[in-house]
Amino acid sequence: MRPSGRQTDEMRTVSLETGVTKYAEGSCMARFGDTHVLCTASIETRVPPWLRGKGSGWVTAEYGMLPRSTSERMNREAARGKQSGRTQEIQRLIGRSLRAVTDLKAMGEIQITVDCDVIQADGGTRTASITGAYVALFMAFEKLVKTGALKSIPITDQVAAVSCGLYKGAAVLDLDYIEDSDAEADTNFVLTASGGIVEVQGTAEDKPFTQEQFMELMRLARLGVDELCLAQRAVLSQNI
Amino acid sequence: MRPSGRQTDEMRTVSLETGVTKYAEGSCMARFGDTHVLCTASIETRVPPWLRGKGSGWVTAEYGMLPRSTSERMNREAARGKQSGRTQEIQRLIGRSLRAVTDLKAMGEIQITVDCDVIQADGGTRTASITGAYVALFMAFEKLVKTGALKSIPITDQVAAVSCGLYKGAAVLDLDYIEDSDAEADTNFVLTASGGIVEVQGTAEDKPFTQEQFMELMRLARLGVDELCLAQRAVLSQNI
Amino acid sequence: MRPSGRQTDEMRTVSLETGVTKYAEGSCMARFGDTHVLCTASIETRVPPWLRGKGSGWVTAEYGMLPRSTSERMNREAARGKQSGRTQEIQRLIGRSLRAVTDLKAMGEIQITVDCDVIQADGGTRTASITGAYVALFMAFEKLVKTGALKSIPITDQVAAVSCGLYKGAAVLDLDYIEDSDAEADTNFVLTASGGIVEVQGTAEDKPFTQEQFMELMRLARLGVDELCLAQRAVLSQNI
Amino acid sequence: MRPSGRQTDEMRTVSLETGVTKYAEGSCMARFGDTHVLCTASIETRVPPWLRGKGSGWVTAEYGMLPRSTSERMNREAARGKQSGRTQEIQRLIGRSLRAVTDLKAMGEIQITVDCDVIQADGGTRTASITGAYVALFMAFEKLVKTGALKSIPITDQVAAVSCGLYKGAAVLDLDYIEDSDAEADTNFVLTASGGIVEVQGTAEDKPFTQEQFMELMRLARLGVDELCLAQRAVLSQNI
Amino acid sequence: MRPSGRQTDEMRTVSLETGVTKYAEGSCMARFGDTHVLCTASIETRVPPWLRGKGSGWVTAEYGMLPRSTSERMNREAARGKQSGRTQEIQRLIGRSLRAVTDLKAMGEIQITVDCDVIQADGGTRTASITGAYVALFMAFEKLVKTGALKSIPITDQVAAVSCGLYKGAAVLDLDYIEDSDAEADTNFVLTASGGIVEVQGTAEDKPFTQEQFMELMRLARLGVDELCLAQRAVLSQNI
Amino acid sequence: MRPSGRQTDEMRTVSLETGVTKYAEGSCMARFGDTHVLCTASIETRVPPWLRGKGSGWVTAEYGMLPRSTSERMNREAARGKQSGRTQEIQRLIGRSLRAVTDLKAMGEIQITVDCDVIQADGGTRTASITGAYVALFMAFEKLVKTGALKSIPITDQVAAVSCGLYKGAAVLDLDYIEDSDAEADTNFVLTASGGIVEVQGTAEDKPFTQEQFMELMRLARLGVDELCLAQRAVLSQNI
Repeated sequence: MRPSGRQTDEMRTVSLETGVTKYAEGSCMARFGDTHVLCTASIETRVPPWLRGKGSGWVTAEYGMLPRSTSERMNREAARGKQSGRTQEIQRLIGRSLRAVTDLKAMGEIQITVDCDVIQADGGTRTASITGAYVALFMAFEKLVKTGALKSIPITDQVAAVSCGLYKGAAVLDLDYIEDSDAEADTNFVLTASGGIVEVQGTAEDKPFTQEQFMELMRLARLGVDELCLAQRAVLSQNI
Repeated sequence: MRPSGRQTDEMRTVSLETGVTKYAEGSCMARFGDTHVLCTASIETRVPPWLRGKGSGWVTAEYGMLPRSTSERMNREAARGKQSGRTQEIQRLIGRSLRAVTDLKAMGEIQITVDCDVIQADGGTRTASITGAYVALFMAFEKLVKTGALKSIPITDQVAAVSCGLYKGAAVLDLDYIEDSDAEADTNFVLTASGGIVEVQGTAEDKPFTQEQFMELMRLARLGVDELCLAQRAVLSQNI
Repeated sequence: MRPSGRQTDEMRTVSLETGVTKYAEGSCMARFGDTHVLCTASIETRVPPWLRGKGSGWVTAEYGMLPRSTSERMNREAARGKQSGRTQEIQRLIGRSLRAVTDLKAMGEIQITVDCDVIQADGGTRTASITGAYVALFMAFEKLVKTGALKSIPITDQVAAVSCGLYKGAAVLDLDYIEDSDAEADTNFVLTASGGIVEVQGTAEDKPFTQEQFMELMRLARLGVDELCLAQRAVLSQNI
Repeated sequence: MRPSGRQTDEMRTVSLETGVTKYAEGSCMARFGDTHVLCTASIETRVPPWLRGKGSGWVTAEYGMLPRSTSERMNREAARGKQSGRTQEIQRLIGRSLRAVTDLKAMGEIQITVDCDVIQADGGTRTASITGAYVALFMAFEKLVKTGALKSIPITDQVAAVSCGLYKGAAVLDLDYIEDSDAEADTNFVLTASGGIVEVQGTAEDKPFTQEQFMELMRLARLGVDELCLAQRAVLSQNI
Repeated sequence: MRPSGRQTDEMRTVSLETGVTKYAEGSCMARFGDTHVLCTASIETRVPPWLRGKGSGWVTAEYGMLPRSTSERMNREAARGKQSGRTQEIQRLIGRSLRAVTDLKAMGEIQITVDCDVIQADGGTRTASITGAYVALFMAFEKLVKTGALKSIPITDQVAAVSCGLYKGAAVLDLDYIEDSDAEADTNFVLTASGGIVEVQGTAEDKPFTQEQFMELMRLARLGVDELCLAQRAVLSQNI
Repeated sequence: MRPSGRQTDEMRTVSLETGVTKYAEGSCMARFGDTHVLCTASIETRVPPWLRGKGSGWVTAEYGMLPRSTSERMNREAARGKQSGRTQEIQRLIGRSLRAVTDLKAMGEIQITVDCDVIQADGGTRTASITGAYVALFMAFEKLVKTGALKSIPITDQVAAVSCGLYKGAAVLDLDYIEDSDAEADTNFVLTASGGIVEVQGTAEDKPFTQEQFMELMRLARLGVDELCLAQRAVLSQNI
């Protein structure tokens, strides 16, 4: 029933490849099927003005899509001179998700910026971004531990994200672009390995959905995030 | 326990005052306690370029805050030369919420823009905006029915919104600013009178929350929205 | 002869309502007939860079119109990404008018920003803005006196503004929008209670006007400003 | 008493040099002492969107200052990415002044843009701009008459402008920069050869001024504009 | 003597990988050592306004760097709201280089935009961009030939680019970042397979260089471009 | 054969007029035939942030064209809100050219900005700008020597620029606009009096050109720059 032939509770093939760029303190190419997002974590020794001297660090994120990451070429945001509302919404979401599992006090007065750049888009770019951004962030902290700048990794839980939706009346896990374009409801769940909820976003595309449907979507998300957390741990070679 | 002395499931005093401006086709001053949002609906005969000739209409929203609607003066977005990510996020949310209960095909090739301008802010400006915007939109459609431009009001359900949050460990309804600043979780629910979910947004502020907590927040939201829908019907003097 | 039936030297109904917002140090809703402008004064402890350390304060103003304050919806300046030339011209005028009656040295190194936001427009928004801004500014200074931050109110005179114009050949006081759209000349006078001139702006709309006509417009303005100053004193409960 | 040694009613040396650029349909270098403004008139066959098909033309103006036209280098507006409020105010004033003496209907559906670029500034740049812009505009119309595109020059009166001010208590004509920086009042008068008033702008710099002072400033302006109109006629070799 | 141990006339390892994205009509990841540029060609059926109805097509390019493509994170141009002068200079250069070998008339009224996005930067991003962009463009034209939209590929010559510079007094081919930062002269040559010059850019970094030095740099460039053209032909599996 | 009747190796009439503005520390109106560029040098006591405290100065340039410097009126960059890619490219070129002959260490921690504003354009505005900017810069340094702020003029060589191109198959010196619009190749050479190369830019407009053609263009440029350097020395009344 799904265009891809997947089961309703089946993720696309997920791969998290680390060490994909030469310079970044942490990097991860997150692939959810044909959605590919390059996530790089950059350590900066300067925190935002409103945090200076407060003994706390900051984690933030930026998001962008290459103009031809999509089926039709989009305008380049740098050329248009501004980021769209959608871009800002997504990068704010990624930043909040990462901060929810980071002990900002423990990281000291530094800032880590995670850039999530979509190389190829086939639905679910924000959830792939969060999932890969966690890996890149973790690696940047590992580097700080190795250099002795930090005693331990100031991450309190493991976070990943997945989208679920109502497609032709059924709740399905990890929407690809074809499904997303035609879904009756589109939800994104940012969840932790230990079972917590970090962010929930649900939108009825055409007509309202019911609470029962929403609960089923959340159940699928739990399954998906568990799989993603496994993949994160595999690539980071460790349990937290 | 709440700074305002309210019960956990108690809304602030809500008032929806219509006809508050001379020119707009529909208008409503939505007050949730000290949060006051002026919502005006404007009918335009021109739809966005990508809808022209498709026989469908459009409903959209814009959101703004007066510089001194808040306790500290904010910079004026027009002077800064751009709308913040938060502003764009909120106006996109309002627009989606209204479209979810509008039959765009039935409204013909016109556009209705609902402006939500915050005169005074004390938490919950986006939910007050949606609740008041529905009233302004409904009134604009009524005007089109009265002039014979439409046969009936192309609204399929009644929509309203409320925020809920975890405050000092307890789930509470309709956060005011003091609670909002200190909440462990902040959620916004856009629900319909008939029981449907239009939008759900939940954010853990400090640490992840549980699914049980989330369900309790949704239960409170249902109570709040029912009250808001009553107020909408009272002021629109009719059931849909 | 005037569309409103007013005499040539008759103002619209003027009301100056104070205390209309919860947060601002001074606030006034200035109503000239159907023109309603919300004026709020905000005290900031930081002066512009070029004044720092000079022992002088600053008074400035910003102006905006809600998108549907007018008969046809206007574009939102924050969404367009810039303030129009007209907006900038008006806010510069308001700021100069207020500074002309303020002893900047005496106020110390603080800044007061008066925001004038047009809720509903029916001609004369800049003159209503100045008239209401004076009230809001005065109240903010009163608050500083009450808290002991200032010994006395550093205002040297009372200022108000009114428009006059040539309409169907006659000089008339306080143009409303219908008259304004069709006037042969449009003038704005910013005058003090003690008889001084702070700002004069006169524009021939169609063909030049004569010096005699200009003198008659100035005479009417004097009448109007006297009435406005009375209203200001009434609401501020005192003479300066 | 004046720093330049001029009498109170004495203009600086005025020169209006035409034909100063190779391409423009009309051009004039207007010099008021050390203030030099290059005015060029450009004929365009396209009117603004809101005038299309209405059988009327349009005259507009743009204003700019070279970065080192002033004693201290200013930032380049093109580099800063926006025109200042002052720039917009001045170019709107120039445009209105020219339109007040142009029969827009008679000029047909064309637009003439007059660019006023300040090469060197020593006070009075806006009044030199208007005075020179009139000459450039007239020449552009002459060219259209010569080519047969117009039957006659659609100018209804002659317009010029001068500033006057209160300097050390005395009313003086044509302020230079030193006087302008220290004036108690600054006024600009845009007047016609036939005695009409097109624009009046008066600003109290420090404290309000009186109506008597204002009348004296207007009397001086009349003297100055008469001299400027003579210079315009001399250079255009004709009376209107 | 070179930090990399290369000979003065030795290129870095070059690889041109095609088919690297799912959607673009032509794509090539161009790698010059650690410099990696993703080039995608997008066919659009709309030409720029000034070409409409003229029977000619257009080829243009855009260039960008991912924020962490460099050793220190750069600001994101989309977030800053404008493209730097350097970015604009480079994308104009790429566009001109491609147009110099394209028969715009023969391609019909379509536009091809080649996006060059730097994934990792180690010097020579503009020359890698041009070299890869040629491949992507060629592939897009091949696709148009396959679908029958074009009879033949409207490319008149093969184009590639390389940088050369004076490093510690010696002329060297294909500067990497370390050399580039410390070079006395930096030149970029865009040359064709048949021996022609498309673009030459030479800049003395510290002190002027001589004509003899320049000729030696050009000789090295010829060697480099010959190697690049071989690589292009190998990957496109054909001679032009 | 050239539209102007000039020989292939013949420059237009060149004039470098100094002292053309009242305020700038150095100024030069550079005229290459009908191309007129006003160059002004401004001394500022503040260097860019990245140079502060490093004991080095900075020389930079800005470039602009008056809207009607060209045959058709162009849009004003300040009104459009940004500088074009071409403008940025040119001003970066001028700045690099001046810095190549300036001893930045020797000038101390000051900045000199040279503004090049095109009053009238007939081809070759960037080369006239560089040639005149050198004169203005030199004069500014002379002023610093006269006031004792510098011991000697920190200029290491004399720099000038000229364009050459292939026009109807022949290499010609100093293209005017008609030639430029129709040239097969367009090159700009920035050379020093002592024979060095500072910048070379060559662009094939239609089809690639040969190395022999390029060498001939460079030979012509050498002739032209020698003539320009003579003119610079004549006006600066000295040899370096």
